[in-house]
Amino acid sequence: MRIDGLQYANWSEKIFRQMREGEVDAVHVTISYHENFRETVLNFERWNRWFEQYPDLIQKGLTAEDIEKAREAGRTAIFFGFQNPSPIEDDIDLVEIVHTLGARFMQLTYNNQSLLATGCYEAEDTGITRMGKQVIKEMNRVGLVVDMSHSADRSTIEAAELSERPIAITHANPYDWSPALRNKKHDVISAVVQHGGMLGFSLYPHHLKDKTDCTLQSFCEMIARAADQYGVQHLGIGSDLCQDQPDSVVEWMRVGRWSKEIDYGEGSASQAGFPPMPEWFRDNRDFGNIESGLRMVGMNDEEIAGVMGGNWFRFFADNFAPVPA
Amino acid sequence: MRIDGLQYANWSEKIFRQMREGEVDAVHVTISYHENFRETVLNFERWNRWFEQYPDLIQKGLTAEDIEKAREAGRTAIFFGFQNPSPIEDDIDLVEIVHTLGARFMQLTYNNQSLLATGCYEAEDTGITRMGKQVIKEMNRVGLVVDMSHSADRSTIEAAELSERPIAITHANPYDWSPALRNKKHDVISAVVQHGGMLGFSLYPHHLKDKTDCTLQSFCEMIARAADQYGVQHLGIGSDLCQDQPDSVVEWMRVGRWSKEIDYGEGSASQAGFPPMPEWFRDNRDFGNIESGLRMVGMNDEEIAGVMGGNWFRFFADNFAPVPA
Repeated sequence: MRIDGLQYANWSEKIFRQMREGEVDAVHVTISYHENFRETVLNFERWNRWFEQYPDLIQKGLTAEDIEKAREAGRTAIFFGFQNPSPIEDDIDLVEIVHTLGARFMQLTYNNQSLLATGCYEAEDTGITRMGKQVIKEMNRVGLVVDMSHSADRSTIEAAELSERPIAITHANPYDWSPALRNKKHDVISAVVQHGGMLGFSLYPHHLKDKTDCTLQSFCEMIARAADQYGVQHLGIGSDLCQDQPDSVVEWMRVGRWSKEIDYGEGSASQAGFPPMPEWFRDNRDFGNIESGLRMVGMNDEEIAGVMGGNWFRFFADNFAPVPA
Repeated sequence: MRIDGLQYANWSEKIFRQMREGEVDAVHVTISYHENFRETVLNFERWNRWFEQYPDLIQKGLTAEDIEKAREAGRTAIFFGFQNPSPIEDDIDLVEIVHTLGARFMQLTYNNQSLLATGCYEAEDTGITRMGKQVIKEMNRVGLVVDMSHSADRSTIEAAELSERPIAITHANPYDWSPALRNKKHDVISAVVQHGGMLGFSLYPHHLKDKTDCTLQSFCEMIARAADQYGVQHLGIGSDLCQDQPDSVVEWMRVGRWSKEIDYGEGSASQAGFPPMPEWFRDNRDFGNIESGLRMVGMNDEEIAGVMGGNWFRFFADNFAPVPA
């Protein structure tokens, strides 16, 4: 089973076909960076059209069982998530509404301070806010997973501790391997996995050692090391694949509507756009390379099956349903 | 001249008539606590209807000169403000839009953490956020005054320092006089006035020494002391009069949409509603009592005229217009 813990592609029939070619059974796709509730609904609508248009390739995913159904039908199950809490605006009751519409992950912050927590690009981090504490409780209740991929350290640790259900870092790598601001320090990953959470390894070049030039071996050795440190059952892939996106999209991701000045985020003025992917992971067709790479660095079949999808499957099965009343 | 730096009444012809009876020339009225942009536009619309309906009592205020015009016509000029940045949502370009619509004050926070700064009820305060810095710059440019009445200490001091134009605390009292969480400590007031800002004294009982039982003399002595400490030219009234509001409104003010649990704010479970006003300041008809009280504690005519309206007038004249291009 292959499950990708995060993608944000410029979706097309071509990409849906590549998912099938790469035998990808499920993908958590981002449908909001900075979109407010109404704009996010437009993105749900767009996916409904695609599900209608490509029933042989994709289907909506709401539960882990949907992945099994999708496999049987030869389709990829699409799960929705937000990289910012902007879709719930300032309204805690929107948590249940977006879950009903199909959202299964929500980041509490995207780089900046939000109403709920602190993002990884702020100078300081006060942890989970008053509203954040209320919203985590509500997310736990309805089955919307807390994702802290773009959050600051203290906020992430507090979220792991405050949340009564496991949380996720859907797409990031260990900071020890590649010290990017978006990668996660040891105590942050430890807090997440100690509370049953998941880490999805990112293939976005800014999160890789040597960026685009990162080798498959280095990436897979990093995973094997993380398996030893944190327990392999907490690990998956969250490729952060942003396939076919124009550079205007990375500008939207970084700046949204919050600044009139450009902010280069993980890039720089000279390298403002999307970085090129490593040659061994161009798109959904290359998950097999990672599988081979993990075998190469000595992981066994069971471990590899877990990292490639089994661990996300179990996490989805445990965390997407409401707590029984 | 009498100017009130903040009111949030349940508006009616009765109250507009009382403003005339109390010879109130201008009032800064709150038109948003938690309203988003679209909801705030509804509140602008409501006021447009009232201006149409009561042209002999009230008119829209955009500049200090509008106060003089209103005086000549025997009307009260109404200036708009927000107690939360919720009307600009996550969109910096809405700053200019709301100014064009007539907004002249915007609080960066209302008790809680916002996208811009920390509110006075959060456990910790990281100061002005990344977005906050951008938004203050834009507010300075268009002539929308930063109001920190409900903000935490560090955020307020940073706002005073970062802002290139003076800021205001439209409605609060010195913490030294009455140690409410919403009142302002010495170094906070100092930072605001050192940068040319204003403090409006609140008559909301939770901000008064002995609350509803506060005496006129104690209130006026506090003002006289503040005049000595901070310079009388930085002082005005910001009554925070919430006349005729049902208790459901104080619940909306406190909880908005951010919590499913009740939060009592400055009140308590046993005293959840609006507190009764002191008998010497029931409503707009009682500004004369404050004037007499200030005289009683030894302030001279010029000082009293400044506190009752002259200082706000000068502040309005300096800070509501865009910076020349």
